[in-house]
Amino acid sequence: MFIAKRDPLRYDRPDPLMSQSSPSSLGAVEILKNHGDTVNGFFRVLRDRYADSPARLLDAIEYSVMAGGKRLRPALVLECFLACAGRNPRDPGHKSAVAAAAAIELIHTFSLVHDDLPAMDDDDLRRGRPTNHKVFGEAMAILAGDAMVTVAFEILAADADPAVLPAMIHAIASASGPQGMIGGQALDMENENARLSLPDLQRVHRMKTGALLTASCRLGALAARGEQCLQAVTEFGRHLGLAFQIVDDVLDVTSTPEQMGKATRKDAGKGKNTYPSLLGLEASRREAQAQLSQALASLDPLGAAANGLRAMARFVVERNN
Amino acid sequence: MFIAKRDPLRYDRPDPLMSQSSPSSLGAVEILKNHGDTVNGFFRVLRDRYADSPARLLDAIEYSVMAGGKRLRPALVLECFLACAGRNPRDPGHKSAVAAAAAIELIHTFSLVHDDLPAMDDDDLRRGRPTNHKVFGEAMAILAGDAMVTVAFEILAADADPAVLPAMIHAIASASGPQGMIGGQALDMENENARLSLPDLQRVHRMKTGALLTASCRLGALAARGEQCLQAVTEFGRHLGLAFQIVDDVLDVTSTPEQMGKATRKDAGKGKNTYPSLLGLEASRREAQAQLSQALASLDPLGAAANGLRAMARFVVERNN
Repeated sequence: MFIAKRDPLRYDRPDPLMSQSSPSSLGAVEILKNHGDTVNGFFRVLRDRYADSPARLLDAIEYSVMAGGKRLRPALVLECFLACAGRNPRDPGHKSAVAAAAAIELIHTFSLVHDDLPAMDDDDLRRGRPTNHKVFGEAMAILAGDAMVTVAFEILAADADPAVLPAMIHAIASASGPQGMIGGQALDMENENARLSLPDLQRVHRMKTGALLTASCRLGALAARGEQCLQAVTEFGRHLGLAFQIVDDVLDVTSTPEQMGKATRKDAGKGKNTYPSLLGLEASRREAQAQLSQALASLDPLGAAANGLRAMARFVVERNN
Repeated sequence: MFIAKRDPLRYDRPDPLMSQSSPSSLGAVEILKNHGDTVNGFFRVLRDRYADSPARLLDAIEYSVMAGGKRLRPALVLECFLACAGRNPRDPGHKSAVAAAAAIELIHTFSLVHDDLPAMDDDDLRRGRPTNHKVFGEAMAILAGDAMVTVAFEILAADADPAVLPAMIHAIASASGPQGMIGGQALDMENENARLSLPDLQRVHRMKTGALLTASCRLGALAARGEQCLQAVTEFGRHLGLAFQIVDDVLDVTSTPEQMGKATRKDAGKGKNTYPSLLGLEASRREAQAQLSQALASLDPLGAAANGLRAMARFVVERNN
């Protein structure tokens, strides 16, 4: 695990090939690429469904949805689906899983577009490109984000197995709403310039990032109708979500904007509560490792079927952008 | 129909009791009040479901959701449900209808909160009170609007009959998204200062307002599982939606901010395309009447069960705020 072993100074200019040369991470890179291709393929034909909609709105949606994100959440949906359903590509749940993967990525992308708005984080750069409102204007960016949410639910209603649709809608909606991502964002804003305790910081992170990552895992298990699998991937998602956010906080301190494709060192400037500001860098890295260990332990009941998830979990903690 | 008969000058200071003293409108007022009470009761207990969410976010949501709107869309859901299911309060679809009524009002309210934002219409006044962002700030108003959408879908997933949930999710999502309300708003923005043809203006209106009103009617029929009723209330909703928007445009020209509880005469100032700007006031009123007649004709197959819908349709066209 590079994050624990490497000299902290090295994080200022890490070798981008290092994590990819690790055998376990290489697996994750391939997994992410494969699942990313699946969801990208879905998005490419999705526009046809909305052919009679205003072109500029579709352009604004497409600009952010196809901006080259890591597709971590869709990959979690699809990899959890495979871990729970087995590797049979003819599993009837596959269509539900792809719909859920696309839906969760739309919700994630919507949150980025709205978070970047001048009234929110006021960011100019995202994934190495100008943010949505910089290109399309604030009003269109607000509408594009709004539309991503309704399209996410429309996709599920159209493509997901009706037998699992209620649970899927509930999983996405509750993870996104006041008790999840949006609530976490609101809490984060309220807490600016107030020093949080570790449990309070964990609460923000569970809501802001963890809920959607956990939902991604649950959606895969739901698509597979894998009742006994659901508990394991839910636990996995919770620990992975915390690890992910800690690493994100660490990278904000230790990376350059060029590496991240977005502004860095913004958290401290805004008085935001982060793991490094509360625990320091080293203890934060140890905590990320501890969460990773717990995430991996959660997968024990799934045996070898979860090897892809294990590789992805390590990748998330080892990543440097 | 007051709108056709009354002297245009009277619209500057109409007697608020006049429309209520009409027997058919009085029926509509009672219907709106009854269904409004139902959905308000639902909203009052809804907060308990989100008790562990950030209080200020819930306050911001509640501020706009409980701002005293007419509850026209929920009333359409519930009245269409009754028209399609009969007057049996023990109909098992009633819970689905109430959930759909609440969901559609949340979607409507979200659109108002985001439309009022400085980057959009930049309105200070809504329903006679300061707009959401004036009270809670822009960032929280964006988040509160976002959360209303996810809560709408969460309510449906939790409360609606799973047998009708896919059709309900599809009805709400497609009416709200790029092909519906949000698309209409985007189109409206694009078209500012361009002179539209009547068909183009009707397209904007069908998307921006009509789609959600039509969806309201469809949701009621879906809750009642009234297949044969669905076509009738869909047609009804389409014509009512156009009539509604024409009257809205007319009122923007002829009313005072005190009557409307929001800024008026804003459309012309912003170069927005409206019926009065395209057809003139009198022809606009005639067109509203024509759409009302077609809406009423659509209800013929439903007989006396649709009397409440007839009263509501007349009320929409006769209203003066």
